[in-house]
Amino acid sequence: MKDFSLEDIKTPADIREMDVEQLTRLAAMMRSSLLKKLSAHGGHIGPNLGMVEAVIALHYVFNTPTDKIVFDVSHQTYPHKMLTGRMDAFTDPAHYDDVTGYTNPAESDYDLYSLGHTSSAVALAAGLAMARDLKGDKENVVAVIGDGSLSGGVAFEGLDTGATLGSNFIVVVNDNQMSIAENHGGIYSNLELLRSTNGQGEPNLFRSFGYDYHYVRYGNDLHSLIEAFRAVKDSTRPVVVHINTMKGMGLPAAEANKEEFHYSGPFDLKTGAPLHEELPQTAPKTYDDLFADTMLRQMKANPGVVAITAGTPGVLGFTPARRKEAGRQFVDVGIAEQAAVDLASGLAKGGMRPVAGFVSSFLQRAYDQFSQDIALNRQPATFVVFYGSMFGMNDETHLGFFDIALLANIPDLLVLAPTCREEFESMLDWAIGQKELPVVIRTPGAVAVSNPQIEPATDYSRPAYQIVRQGSEVALIGAGLMFGIMAQAADLLEKQGVKATLINPRELSALDTATLDSLKGYKAVITAEDGIIDGGFGQKVASYLGQAPAKVVNLGLPKEFLNRYDYSELQTRCGLTPQQIADRAISELK
Amino acid sequence: MKDFSLEDIKTPADIREMDVEQLTRLAAMMRSSLLKKLSAHGGHIGPNLGMVEAVIALHYVFNTPTDKIVFDVSHQTYPHKMLTGRMDAFTDPAHYDDVTGYTNPAESDYDLYSLGHTSSAVALAAGLAMARDLKGDKENVVAVIGDGSLSGGVAFEGLDTGATLGSNFIVVVNDNQMSIAENHGGIYSNLELLRSTNGQGEPNLFRSFGYDYHYVRYGNDLHSLIEAFRAVKDSTRPVVVHINTMKGMGLPAAEANKEEFHYSGPFDLKTGAPLHEELPQTAPKTYDDLFADTMLRQMKANPGVVAITAGTPGVLGFTPARRKEAGRQFVDVGIAEQAAVDLASGLAKGGMRPVAGFVSSFLQRAYDQFSQDIALNRQPATFVVFYGSMFGMNDETHLGFFDIALLANIPDLLVLAPTCREEFESMLDWAIGQKELPVVIRTPGAVAVSNPQIEPATDYSRPAYQIVRQGSEVALIGAGLMFGIMAQAADLLEKQGVKATLINPRELSALDTATLDSLKGYKAVITAEDGIIDGGFGQKVASYLGQAPAKVVNLGLPKEFLNRYDYSELQTRCGLTPQQIADRAISELK
Repeated sequence: MKDFSLEDIKTPADIREMDVEQLTRLAAMMRSSLLKKLSAHGGHIGPNLGMVEAVIALHYVFNTPTDKIVFDVSHQTYPHKMLTGRMDAFTDPAHYDDVTGYTNPAESDYDLYSLGHTSSAVALAAGLAMARDLKGDKENVVAVIGDGSLSGGVAFEGLDTGATLGSNFIVVVNDNQMSIAENHGGIYSNLELLRSTNGQGEPNLFRSFGYDYHYVRYGNDLHSLIEAFRAVKDSTRPVVVHINTMKGMGLPAAEANKEEFHYSGPFDLKTGAPLHEELPQTAPKTYDDLFADTMLRQMKANPGVVAITAGTPGVLGFTPARRKEAGRQFVDVGIAEQAAVDLASGLAKGGMRPVAGFVSSFLQRAYDQFSQDIALNRQPATFVVFYGSMFGMNDETHLGFFDIALLANIPDLLVLAPTCREEFESMLDWAIGQKELPVVIRTPGAVAVSNPQIEPATDYSRPAYQIVRQGSEVALIGAGLMFGIMAQAADLLEKQGVKATLINPRELSALDTATLDSLKGYKAVITAEDGIIDGGFGQKVASYLGQAPAKVVNLGLPKEFLNRYDYSELQTRCGLTPQQIADRAISELK
Repeated sequence: MKDFSLEDIKTPADIREMDVEQLTRLAAMMRSSLLKKLSAHGGHIGPNLGMVEAVIALHYVFNTPTDKIVFDVSHQTYPHKMLTGRMDAFTDPAHYDDVTGYTNPAESDYDLYSLGHTSSAVALAAGLAMARDLKGDKENVVAVIGDGSLSGGVAFEGLDTGATLGSNFIVVVNDNQMSIAENHGGIYSNLELLRSTNGQGEPNLFRSFGYDYHYVRYGNDLHSLIEAFRAVKDSTRPVVVHINTMKGMGLPAAEANKEEFHYSGPFDLKTGAPLHEELPQTAPKTYDDLFADTMLRQMKANPGVVAITAGTPGVLGFTPARRKEAGRQFVDVGIAEQAAVDLASGLAKGGMRPVAGFVSSFLQRAYDQFSQDIALNRQPATFVVFYGSMFGMNDETHLGFFDIALLANIPDLLVLAPTCREEFESMLDWAIGQKELPVVIRTPGAVAVSNPQIEPATDYSRPAYQIVRQGSEVALIGAGLMFGIMAQAADLLEKQGVKATLINPRELSALDTATLDSLKGYKAVITAEDGIIDGGFGQKVASYLGQAPAKVVNLGLPKEFLNRYDYSELQTRCGLTPQQIADRAISELK
């Protein structure tokens, strides 16, 4: 097709007859369409703009879906979706929400995995390649990794394993010189050396793992990319193709402000200015802001206070300006959650007061370090969890409600759930001030409300529930964000003449047995938590009260990988609205 | 001291005045003492014999404990313990059990961490070095890693992070050309290149991470080691010292059979022959043997069946002879649990029937992969857990009872607990035969008994409890190994005229609600599991029955990092003897 429109592209076969001039035109059309959608819709902007040409070249050279491509993190796969039967989700506003932001086998046979956590693509692809070899098949297997995710431990494990395959195994390293924020780690000096020597310098990280190596200086040039991919197609050895791309290419604001445009909401296409309204100065703060402000205050008072992130400084409220203000007391290890936790352990051992912040969904990558290097070794480091909530991210790959079951069952690890901003600040200050215990403070991805009913404690080292309202017969125990909902339920009950005991448990990892003992003769004890019921806080209460007359009801979320769920539908499904909780209490009282 | 005995060495200061001739004598005396203890006592033999000289040289050159040494895995620290105030634990049989097999801060200020999982030392040391820099101190910080543990993801993350310190940071890589078994992974070709070029070859893995690099060809020669460590002492840059050591040095049998002597029980010092009696051929099999036999049978029937280990083939029963028999259908990725799980995911996606086996304590290193790359993506891979039990390993670093809370709370991951050998075989055959679900089969570190009462199911995809004995009023639900103990308790109850309902739940990750509904009117339901109560199977039952009249009692283990506990004391403490369970049932019936 000499003349074509984007709508003509139904499968990659439709581009394989094109010449490079046509492909270049295709890239321009795709980028233009992406810009239009992203400016109106938001999404992972920089990663996708930078990969338009590489994705076209991959589908042009390789015989997908017979040849297999695993995209790491897969937040850079909008161009891939455009070429594989989902163009209208990028050209027609009515269909913008038809696709997820990640590869998803439910959408297309060209999508091998549902991936949103980083660094796993190489190891997954090694498995696909090994399966191919055992079957005696011959297709190409390609892993696409980069954009900061090369520093995750499993990426190195995958490189190490893939190198031993002795057969076709192609790793495309998308080097856009960035992670979400700037890159950190020794390997990035090596990538810089390789870029500055047009791939000729030594040492060479990839060769040291056992790979053949190709460098593509112009990673947004279709000629160069096609030539490089053709050179490695049907290779019978593990090989790395290192492509030098520009994150955010085609949107000047994104090229200039790569961190801000890694992921963004709607923006003005001309200026790049965000379209959402700025919150007024008087608005309640979010937990990331509260965290950063508290940390900067702590840092100034104590040079031993250090904040740590694994590649997501913005999630912790540490904007570039705040990072500058923190100086050496803010550390970004890059996407390397395990190292972040161990660094905190070493800093604590060395007498510092480290505080590491993680997105709920990502901290699970460091479970072994939380268990062995923090809890078992009782290192007094503090960890703050962000987006630990049903009201946080709702992609199946980024769910924030498995962390209670994960962390609160580790011995000697204190897990706290603040119910409001004052309590959060109190917990964080206390955690930094003490030197006995490792502490986790779990915050939801929500505005941090003030709550004058809540009395921050002076010591959180032992479980001590706050009885916010004393009632009888029925107790409502609401952990973290759920406290506010339980308080509303208590209000509703009061209107019906039922005075419930309302409890803020503060801690999720151990029980205040004295307070629970006082509830044994109640008719019902209802717990609610912003996490899965299985393995959670409420089940500890149910177990403890198992032989007591009181009935126990555990409310929380189902043990399911929900995807792009509607928040209020889920809340209702789980019986977690104030009215539902009040009704449940009434029915258990009968 | 010109003449000295081992007993004269109280601290490293006592060796710092020695000359190399004396140190060499010291090494010989230490090795001889180690051999005497290990032949009588067992332990990590090869790793320690290979590191005698390096540990002496480290304490000789560095000013410990001001200079800090973090030993990875720390199973090679017997020589370190000998030099740091604990000599009698290696020279006096009466004190052999005074020390643990790993570094432990409770024992000595020279021990920085309690470590038994691999690969974390570099990242921990990076934290110590950063703390030092923030304080403006100047001591040396040294991480000692190797013996297979360099391939764990967090080791690479640690190298990547440590490279950016820009200050003193010394990583000693103990290259004994082995893991527990032979090494696997691309980096080992690089180490081989470096050895064969006396450290001069390119590419160089460590330089590519940003480290200066020194190679020590004779890593059991004190002259060479001292010279190398002196060269890097007080270095102001991150530096790797790559030492080429011989695992098992000084015990010919261990030098020849490195895998067998990585860890071993007592042996004949002259021949190396094990001193424990061979089990008679008619003895019940252990789960590792059962696993390997079942897998070899499956492999022969189906070329798509692949067994995977992360560096512990022996734990899976795959002796060198069985590995040879399995050929390409047995894969060892080295110590890289994350890659092992992802490799299984890729193999399953590619149509193979992968089965990966892990030590309970180590599988937690791959939680994110279990969650995201297996369960979320519903890849029908099978995982067999070994030593998942209070009756498994009892070092605080190697506990096998946290895995139920960890895995059984992941959505869409089926966790099964066989009660006997026939059920295990049935579950493994079923898991391999089906292509819908990811399955975990959890086995204890115990002899696999036969139990004619147990009816293996034909399908384990849905929770379906087996009611082994129908009673009334009280139900005993015993998971996995605990089933046998519950059966004994039921016998005791029967003698007292109480007919208990005895249940084998088979599955730990979901409830058979129909069966539980039938128990709601009971007086008591008692659960027992071979794992911590918190987050476990029993708490799911307690939660489900929270509004039912039946009292629920959850038996299991405490959420604690127990260390070298006595098995029967723990069982009694937890109320898990048959008599205690029977007594508890009687008391709940009153």
